Amino acid sequence: MSKDPNCIFCKIVAGEIPSAKILGDDSAFAFLDIGPLAEGHVLLIPAGHYETLDQMPPDHAGALLRHLPALVKAVRAATGCEGVNVLQNNGRVAHQVVPHVHFHVIPRRAGDAFHFNWPAGKYAPGRLDELAAKIRTAL
Amino acid sequence: MSKDPNCIFCKIVAGEIPSAKILGDDSAFAFLDIGPLAEGHVLLIPAGHYETLDQMPPDHAGALLRHLPALVKAVRAATGCEGVNVLQNNGRVAHQVVPHVHFHVIPRRAGDAFHFNWPAGKYAPGRLDELAAKIRTAL
Repeated sequence: MSKDPNCIFCKIVAGEIPSAKILGDDSAFAFLDIGPLAEGHVLLIPAGHYETLDQMPPDHAGALLRHLPALVKAVRAATGCEGVNVLQNNGRVAHQVVPHVHFHVIPRRAGDAFHFNWPAGKYAPGRLDELAAKIRTAL
Repeated sequence: MSKDPNCIFCKIVAGEIPSAKILGDDSAFAFLDIGPLAEGHVLLIPAGHYETLDQMPPDHAGALLRHLPALVKAVRAATGCEGVNVLQNNGRVAHQVVPHVHFHVIPRRAGDAFHFNWPAGKYAPGRLDELAAKIRTAL
């Protein structure tokens, strides 16, 4: 499993930097974000170092993300929140700050501080199928 | 595997409603969102019906989410986007519209239409550890 000696999240997994740990196994580590969007905001990260999600082998992603349902459930139970967003950012333009894959588990309540818009677009005729074929080819 | 006969995503998985399919197996189905936040916006959903993520057994979540890295990679390659957000919404307050778990894979470019803020807070002394203990107990 690869590690980056300069990565703050690798240091947290190794216990070299303290964290408010929620769970950990050979593949995954979860802890409270110290700059939370809401109380109980958890980060779930792979034990190995991957900068972005597309770099992870499928088995590693599966072993990491099988923890998500229990985390969402526990965060809901512990905080009494009304909903939860799971958010993972790849690249600076997508708001990634630490270059080690992390899934944000964000408790939500009506009127809270975190917001996103939803500017849904439309495809021109034919474009949907054209694009789907292009993505399938790239898989 | 449970199905909801009134669920639009269950109908898409069953092929009763057409979709621009990207991939599918016993556990997972991915297709283009017809109201995209950006060209190439993909939805990854479980083949079985779960309203929210906390209802999924860990093995089902793992089998579903092992597809995420390849999808992120293929969407990047096919669209030439600069980054990707993965977003999953649980509950109305978290912006969930269809009550069948779905992971949005959203291509991002500088200056694009999708935005979220990041109102990071701080914990009072002692609160971080108190909350972590509470979440661990709820796991």
